[in-house]
Amino acid sequence: MSPKVPQEEIRRRIERLRKRMKENDVEGALILQNVDLFYFTGTMQEGVLFLSLKEEFLLIRRFLPRAEEETPLEKVLPFRSLREIGPIIRDQLGGIPLRIGLELDLLPVRLYRKLEEALGGVEFVDLSPLILDIRKIKSPWEASLMEKAGEIGKAVYDRVPEFIKKGMSELEVAGKMISLAMSLGHQEYLRMRGFGAEAHSWHILSGYTGGILSRIDAPMGGAGPSPAYPVGASPKVIGPHEPILIDFGTCYFGYLVDETRCFSLGPLPQKFRDAFKAAKEIEEEVITMAKPGVSCQELFEKGWKVARRLGYEEVFMGPKRYKTSFIGHGIGLELNEPPFIAEGHDYPLEEGMTFALEPKMVFMGEGAVGIENTYLVTASGVKKLTPAPEELKEIEVV
Amino acid sequence: MSPKVPQEEIRRRIERLRKRMKENDVEGALILQNVDLFYFTGTMQEGVLFLSLKEEFLLIRRFLPRAEEETPLEKVLPFRSLREIGPIIRDQLGGIPLRIGLELDLLPVRLYRKLEEALGGVEFVDLSPLILDIRKIKSPWEASLMEKAGEIGKAVYDRVPEFIKKGMSELEVAGKMISLAMSLGHQEYLRMRGFGAEAHSWHILSGYTGGILSRIDAPMGGAGPSPAYPVGASPKVIGPHEPILIDFGTCYFGYLVDETRCFSLGPLPQKFRDAFKAAKEIEEEVITMAKPGVSCQELFEKGWKVARRLGYEEVFMGPKRYKTSFIGHGIGLELNEPPFIAEGHDYPLEEGMTFALEPKMVFMGEGAVGIENTYLVTASGVKKLTPAPEELKEIEVV
Repeated sequence: MSPKVPQEEIRRRIERLRKRMKENDVEGALILQNVDLFYFTGTMQEGVLFLSLKEEFLLIRRFLPRAEEETPLEKVLPFRSLREIGPIIRDQLGGIPLRIGLELDLLPVRLYRKLEEALGGVEFVDLSPLILDIRKIKSPWEASLMEKAGEIGKAVYDRVPEFIKKGMSELEVAGKMISLAMSLGHQEYLRMRGFGAEAHSWHILSGYTGGILSRIDAPMGGAGPSPAYPVGASPKVIGPHEPILIDFGTCYFGYLVDETRCFSLGPLPQKFRDAFKAAKEIEEEVITMAKPGVSCQELFEKGWKVARRLGYEEVFMGPKRYKTSFIGHGIGLELNEPPFIAEGHDYPLEEGMTFALEPKMVFMGEGAVGIENTYLVTASGVKKLTPAPEELKEIEVV
Repeated sequence: MSPKVPQEEIRRRIERLRKRMKENDVEGALILQNVDLFYFTGTMQEGVLFLSLKEEFLLIRRFLPRAEEETPLEKVLPFRSLREIGPIIRDQLGGIPLRIGLELDLLPVRLYRKLEEALGGVEFVDLSPLILDIRKIKSPWEASLMEKAGEIGKAVYDRVPEFIKKGMSELEVAGKMISLAMSLGHQEYLRMRGFGAEAHSWHILSGYTGGILSRIDAPMGGAGPSPAYPVGASPKVIGPHEPILIDFGTCYFGYLVDETRCFSLGPLPQKFRDAFKAAKEIEEEVITMAKPGVSCQELFEKGWKVARRLGYEEVFMGPKRYKTSFIGHGIGLELNEPPFIAEGHDYPLEEGMTFALEPKMVFMGEGAVGIENTYLVTASGVKKLTPAPEELKEIEVV
């Protein structure tokens, strides 16, 4: 029905993690989070992956046959409760490693305490920095899935000018885009790493909602359907001559791309056209620099330098006092992976990294415009994974 | 644009939590999870609610003005980092409580350690059981929002027979339903409590996908779009004469109802018709018993008793060896709240509880049928919140 993760992908990922574990004196790893579990096993059935420096086995709690079918790993064992983990490791390895890595950025305290009880005497260390450091380099196979997500995005954006009509609400436009994207294979459920982090693809912001901030660290948040979900598209009806900023991420086989395009019903005031043009110029100048070896911090500074030169310091990346700390972010199975094109991230781009760059201009009370594309870092530069047309589309109102 | 949470709701919720805190010798509470934060403050802007037994204040990290607009709480203060929490509490209260409750079922270890550092010497206890125990009783205002969600569900289900066509995939049907629901005010992002728990509304399962199990504790999981999201609607094309089970939750202002209905393209084999009828009979017999004072365990046993009497023991609530531990679950801001109509849950229904009852029959390799409604417990019985027509709808294929 759908492709599986190839065995060589899984083997390479596991061996890369082992290398990092050795370098960090970590003798074992227990991977529980659904996205990491999928990354290292090819299945997301409920379970735990155990890795020592030499062996690995996957424990599955609910439905073993499906896990066995999806994962290329050889040893898949049933388990019922975390209490069994100690005896199972002992049985498989003859002993329990002394230092075991866990995803401490996400693992809840209550679950952690159960593991402490189950594996008395083990020292637990944080494995998530090592995992994220491996995940940030995408294989050609992973990049091809992101490319496919980008094609879905293009097919959806191509149709937007046809279906946005006077009198539609932001939520209606969002629903149409989701529906179309799903019919093309879009996995509607997007993922973001972090406590309480929620991601979704329906940021349709029109006029003043483009200037509404919210809980997320983004240049704009949108009004959302209600205070219970204060992000993204809202019941607001889209009006003529106001900027419509659409930040619609698409996802294929778990892999995301992030993409923003701008529209309007009828001509836009020159101010927004100019701001859109400036965002494009920032994007182009930053991307021209982007290649392996260039520091993310430098790219961030470049973006700001161009924004200042063009006279957009006040509105670039959010209103004054609420500017985001980044101008771009890594992306893959989750929406917020390293690298971050951000202040203080002074490490180089590497071949195989993927990131979204999103220069945006936010006019509080009026609207937002901007552009966002997802890029793959290649040997000599970057390749764009989001091919939807980029021009500001002023839709004729009939 | 959308209603706010009324002040009297927030006041009553906070006072109920204080009562529980006193009973449990908890002197302070720090509430960080987005859903709990919304429940106790009326806003979901990024922040922390601090409660002592007498005072409360809301700390907001990103966008204070929006939090101030949304919450009826009086004291809303800015903060930048968890390190500031100690000084802020000391400044507001003159000292720091010795025993503080946290949501330890969800709070990640890394964040917990930051709080330990920030509040040296404080004993932290698990607040989540107290919070969930309060949340399980809905006010009439909350029930009215769930009723509204149920009306959206009805409007969507009413239209299903019109738009399901031969040749459509499960994902296409899901997209149409989402799009329609969003245009009626449905909050597409559903929430489920737990580490790595993911909820969504698009379980459209046709024929054999109705018999596919997955990571979630549910009678069936569906194939999903790929191993990276192995739940719900899949690219499978819906065929004639196979059961189409649609479990489509709807959400309004953060409040969910859960609802399952069954369809087919053309007549269904008698076996599925009979199984559907049995599911309805189980639902009716359990619901006839349901009223304040009746134990959830008893309702669970009653469901199983009827299933056995009707000869459906083998397929009821999942295939052999993989049956769910419940036949119904509480629901509200999250999809999995107390009460649980489940083995071992020997506590009584209470007025104001809301729960979904979902008797389902799963034939592996063939398909699933069943019914699900969401109910509000009233003084004398229950009230159905999901009014969509319940009959098995065999759609004429043209």
